[in-house]
Amino acid sequence: MIPGAVAILGGTGQQGSGLARRLAAAGIHVVVGSRNPERARAVTAAWSGAVDVAANGAAVADVDTVVFAVPFGTIDALIDDVGPRMRSGAVAIDLTVPLTFAGGKMPAVALACAFKTVPAHLLDRVDEPLDCDEFVCGDSDAARERALALVAVLPQLRGVDVGPLSRARAIEQLTALAVAINRRHKRHDARFRVVGL
Amino acid sequence: MIPGAVAILGGTGQQGSGLARRLAAAGIHVVVGSRNPERARAVTAAWSGAVDVAANGAAVADVDTVVFAVPFGTIDALIDDVGPRMRSGAVAIDLTVPLTFAGGKMPAVALACAFKTVPAHLLDRVDEPLDCDEFVCGDSDAARERALALVAVLPQLRGVDVGPLSRARAIEQLTALAVAINRRHKRHDARFRVVGL
Repeated sequence: MIPGAVAILGGTGQQGSGLARRLAAAGIHVVVGSRNPERARAVTAAWSGAVDVAANGAAVADVDTVVFAVPFGTIDALIDDVGPRMRSGAVAIDLTVPLTFAGGKMPAVALACAFKTVPAHLLDRVDEPLDCDEFVCGDSDAARERALALVAVLPQLRGVDVGPLSRARAIEQLTALAVAINRRHKRHDARFRVVGL
Repeated sequence: MIPGAVAILGGTGQQGSGLARRLAAAGIHVVVGSRNPERARAVTAAWSGAVDVAANGAAVADVDTVVFAVPFGTIDALIDDVGPRMRSGAVAIDLTVPLTFAGGKMPAVALACAFKTVPAHLLDRVDEPLDCDEFVCGDSDAARERALALVAVLPQLRGVDVGPLSRARAIEQLTALAVAINRRHKRHDARFRVVGL
């Protein structure tokens, strides 16, 4: 096992790549998981920070934190594929919208949701401050704490624990609201900060 | 008609009283609507700003903006009661959570939602700055604009137009999230600000 390492499945995708680069820049050992490691290596070679690349199934085997950053439509198949290869006690962090796998398909793996509201393309502009809050939920204390710790690694991003996994739907509505605000006001980076906390 | 006047039904209640007092303090002519005007007058007499008090049905007759600040369970009956007495072209602003009357029970009255997320007891501490955003939605441009104008009257509160009335559910999820954050973090005033707008 690689202590503290984080696998990001879909780590060269829109949401995943910004997170991978920001975590790597913050000193986290990042393993980018991909269906096509060859192609992923070509992508990550252009990044300023160093990351490992592996096939999705291999990427999850050695880490205790796995971030699912794949498109919504592909997550079920991916979970069937890599779920059994995740370490017992590992934490899965879901950042897809909408949440799909709250049903406990991965025994011995605790699930948290995070990084659902921070705009993907802002995450991807790694030199720009995020300057917002990120909402974390999960039924497992360990999973929530892991996700909050990951959020805390990123400068100017504050993690806000909102409790059980059932809050994921409310978090996703925030994302929908941000999209609506962007569309209506011709912006691109609408995101949220909690006042009074 | 009283130009620019705002009727607040349930204006001595938890959500309504703060809004009534803040609007009055900002120079808006406020008519507090109540089931029991006698009792409402006793309440409003203690307020520092001047407001009128009337029975709900009378309160709506002379104004072009009606705020529904009554408990969720009573709003349907109230709408049946006062809806027919509202002026044609009047705007109804709903701040109950969850939204109940998106179905068009009030012909010739346009509906917007606002003041759903700002905490009632903070609204009620009229000398404290709100320092947050308030989300407004509605299918009618006129209704949204009216609601945004009301929001703009309150210092340090920014109105954010989030589009059609169907966004009300997303706004209500924000409120649910604020409640969850308050509970989890032992706070009372969690509210939201949009970053990047």
